[in-house]
Amino acid sequence: MKDIRLIEIGEELHSDNIRRAALVRERLAASGTIMINIMASPGAGKTTLLAETIRALGAEIRIGVVEADLDSQVDAQAIARYGVPVVQMHTGGFCHVDAFMMEKTLEAVNLDALDILFLENVGNLICPAQSDTGAHHDVALLSVPEGDDKPLKYPVIFKKCGVLVLTKTDYLAVSDFDRAALRGRISVLNPGMQIFELSARTGEGMEGWLDWVRSVRP
Amino acid sequence: MKDIRLIEIGEELHSDNIRRAALVRERLAASGTIMINIMASPGAGKTTLLAETIRALGAEIRIGVVEADLDSQVDAQAIARYGVPVVQMHTGGFCHVDAFMMEKTLEAVNLDALDILFLENVGNLICPAQSDTGAHHDVALLSVPEGDDKPLKYPVIFKKCGVLVLTKTDYLAVSDFDRAALRGRISVLNPGMQIFELSARTGEGMEGWLDWVRSVRP
Repeated sequence: MKDIRLIEIGEELHSDNIRRAALVRERLAASGTIMINIMASPGAGKTTLLAETIRALGAEIRIGVVEADLDSQVDAQAIARYGVPVVQMHTGGFCHVDAFMMEKTLEAVNLDALDILFLENVGNLICPAQSDTGAHHDVALLSVPEGDDKPLKYPVIFKKCGVLVLTKTDYLAVSDFDRAALRGRISVLNPGMQIFELSARTGEGMEGWLDWVRSVRP
Repeated sequence: MKDIRLIEIGEELHSDNIRRAALVRERLAASGTIMINIMASPGAGKTTLLAETIRALGAEIRIGVVEADLDSQVDAQAIARYGVPVVQMHTGGFCHVDAFMMEKTLEAVNLDALDILFLENVGNLICPAQSDTGAHHDVALLSVPEGDDKPLKYPVIFKKCGVLVLTKTDYLAVSDFDRAALRGRISVLNPGMQIFELSARTGEGMEGWLDWVRSVRP
């Protein structure tokens, strides 16, 4: 193939992002809070998974949420119903959360009251993978309707994250999604990746994910 | 809400993109080719819609395809099976196609042999909406499993495109997707937007979309 422009983008788009991410981690450490960065395509089920996680674990773990969106407060409103502290970050059109945005947002979060802070990143399978937000754990969600080929086409995010949650498994019955093919692709890209399969809507498979959240709490 | 950073990103990220998009259009005009830019989240069904469109119209319209991806040739291979010219553009990690990339890519396309050139943009509901690729028509796809709230959260792309294709309507039976709510949101954001509802997998609803493609051919 000729005449194709290849642009190499480094892990860090902004030169100071590494330094700022370290500042975010210092701040989290000072209050003993673990931050989990949830990344996925639009509509992969990030908000629903968070809501069901809060419903299941809210009594045993002090959870807070930062919702990042271009616009609207749809997700923050959905999470607020579950009675946990939630901050809506508007990125003003920006396609992902970086450490600077997170640093500013933490000024509005009472970290001392939280064991785990979830960041629901902007719905985007590409750009969020390029910035360290300061989170301790990066989690990718992939929904069954998106298809099992996504690791081939968006490899960066599937390499970066330590955990993959395959969501909307209730759609497996009406889909040609091949779970073995997905696992084969992940084993090549990121052999150590932990994989959970669940439907937050039906509750099927939630226990494995919830146990993982319990395991990383401070 | 305090301490929230709002970053205003203009319609054009690159200062010369408007000029380059005009060059792309000049080049298309010289060979009488219409370019249609297909944008959507990962897994919304862009490739399947294109494949079924080629299968239905390939005998009456000379169609070519540019597949844009971070990596892999999965989609180009899927399209090549249908016997039309296809060029795989690798963006090298870049999250969307801009006019410069398109200009370079057109050097590898025999436009004189084409009535319609489809660009399958990178799977991303955010960044592609910020760059003019030089296309004559911008089409957004939204799949039923993504949910009817997406125009609230990703308004830029739903404002930019003249056509919305609601894909994977075969999932409506197992989803709580509210088509009236979607249409209400679109009528606020972009009242002139044409909406087609279809399942490329089952063929249901394809005729409206195919008639639109016929209507824009040169």
